[in-house]
Amino acid sequence: MSDALFSPELDANDNDDLRGLVEHFFASRFSTDNAIVTEAVKRMLSAGGKRIRPRITLLAVAACGGRPAEHLSLAAYMELIHVATLVHDDVVDNASTRRGVNATAVDYGNRVSVLAGDYLFAWIFKNVTAGYAHPIPHVLSATLADICDGEVLQLQALGNLNLTSNEYVEIARKKTASLFAASARCGAVTVGASEEQTRALHAFGEYLGIAFQMRDDVLDMTADERSLGKPVGNDLAERKVTIPLIDALARSGGDFRAVVRRFYEGDSPDAIPAIVAGIREFGIDATRRRIAGYVEKARAALEPIAASPAKHELSKLADALSGAPGESNGQRRTS
Amino acid sequence: MSDALFSPELDANDNDDLRGLVEHFFASRFSTDNAIVTEAVKRMLSAGGKRIRPRITLLAVAACGGRPAEHLSLAAYMELIHVATLVHDDVVDNASTRRGVNATAVDYGNRVSVLAGDYLFAWIFKNVTAGYAHPIPHVLSATLADICDGEVLQLQALGNLNLTSNEYVEIARKKTASLFAASARCGAVTVGASEEQTRALHAFGEYLGIAFQMRDDVLDMTADERSLGKPVGNDLAERKVTIPLIDALARSGGDFRAVVRRFYEGDSPDAIPAIVAGIREFGIDATRRRIAGYVEKARAALEPIAASPAKHELSKLADALSGAPGESNGQRRTS
Repeated sequence: MSDALFSPELDANDNDDLRGLVEHFFASRFSTDNAIVTEAVKRMLSAGGKRIRPRITLLAVAACGGRPAEHLSLAAYMELIHVATLVHDDVVDNASTRRGVNATAVDYGNRVSVLAGDYLFAWIFKNVTAGYAHPIPHVLSATLADICDGEVLQLQALGNLNLTSNEYVEIARKKTASLFAASARCGAVTVGASEEQTRALHAFGEYLGIAFQMRDDVLDMTADERSLGKPVGNDLAERKVTIPLIDALARSGGDFRAVVRRFYEGDSPDAIPAIVAGIREFGIDATRRRIAGYVEKARAALEPIAASPAKHELSKLADALSGAPGESNGQRRTS
Repeated sequence: MSDALFSPELDANDNDDLRGLVEHFFASRFSTDNAIVTEAVKRMLSAGGKRIRPRITLLAVAACGGRPAEHLSLAAYMELIHVATLVHDDVVDNASTRRGVNATAVDYGNRVSVLAGDYLFAWIFKNVTAGYAHPIPHVLSATLADICDGEVLQLQALGNLNLTSNEYVEIARKKTASLFAASARCGAVTVGASEEQTRALHAFGEYLGIAFQMRDDVLDMTADERSLGKPVGNDLAERKVTIPLIDALARSGGDFRAVVRRFYEGDSPDAIPAIVAGIREFGIDATRRRIAGYVEKARAALEPIAASPAKHELSKLADALSGAPGESNGQRRTS
């Protein structure tokens, strides 16, 4: 692996090198005596994803004057925390909620999925506590607590059509943006950045993460099935209350709300196309304005960071989230 | 809470004070914004258990010249790691494996059980990384990796009648004894014990943990259902290959092996009483001799530790595992 691979000039849309880097790290460093655990984790890692979290870490390193090539492990741990949460996301509640789940639980059973995810969390913390001084292990464990808290809040909010946009943002901040923020913060901390730089990059990551989650929700309503890797409207099928739905409910008439309520009270997927159409009509534009607002906050958060190619790349990461509807973020499930 | 509660003279059979202490710590310190997670964890903690792991930590502290009352949090984390693994043990593989599971997964569903356990792991590491210097966070995360590895090995060994006693011991060392060893080691480390003392207490915990697991297996075959909190022979129903079964298979004739094999190939619980009787006849005495051997190793491991009431209590903890068959370890499920 050459330094060039990790140069801050790396184009924001060309993730192949970064992906290869994380894969290489994983293949050469991740191992367990247990073939089932290793296989379950490697499958999840190879299923796709843009490796945006390690990318944020390496760009934060560079933006604070460090050399990204010297911090590959730290960056990879950010992706592995994400992968471990995906392994656990796949655990299913008996047959009724088996739809839409990934391979781990189906192939190996829930118990192995749980243990594989636990093992991965433990393996990450075992390595992080051996290799990194305070506060990095603390930042990562606090982030994991936030992620779990956000996911439980999301479960509790399933089917709640009265969920407010503020409540939605709080869930997105915990379940998604906390790891983006930690990815940026740890990159800054590990190269001894100032408190001001660290706070700035943390804030950047948090705003970026919220925009990323909102963009993810929009793609579920607008992208084509092939680029999405799953049916359009899958969030509806799972009874998630996403931000385009919240925005559509606030802007549509009573008829749309009645259709949505009937769907959420019953279980007929026949209504999904009509609801998707309603969300596209009433909600998507408002959500896009929200995304643009968080992208702007993310860019503004970078103000204390000195100009550099890496800072420019971070801004471009944010800008990409305000892109045109056709620009898929890639395979969404493992984004 | 007075210091007297945690005096090293505390009788080894009187766990009420220690239990109250952990409960108090938990009630006053453990909190999440999420009522479901808090409730799931508190239910598991209040379901019983002897709090043997925090007890080992506090006795190790005292045996190395420290004051147990100053290390309550560290001791409580040992119990909480155990509780988090129990929450995840309850995750079920659809209806077929729902038998014998505890309340969390049944009441809240698998997803909440997984997230509650994850949250608890994260909460523990968040606090441990904030409050304790290297190597304690590293010891605990490495221990969690061992536990997961041991549990996967146990899953893979289900129904394998060719499992050797050495393979069994390796599983028990990882899934059970590693946390006993870590509980003792962390008590020593946190009061600045010498390398020799730390190694001695670690070895003590490991031998004690192996004996504890073997004793647990014996109780499944010999205790009455009331003291056990579940049907006798439950390990058989789960197709676990426990050490009394391994010992019985090695000492019985071919008839017993044939009965066991038919039971493990089929699914009729009718054969359980006959298998339990066979294990009692052929296996229990041999397993008791193994337990006595590990108890002796545990006592011998303490040799470098200076005589003290705490050292005496640690020896008594080990001796209690060689007790008469009627002496239940208490509610086994959450031991």
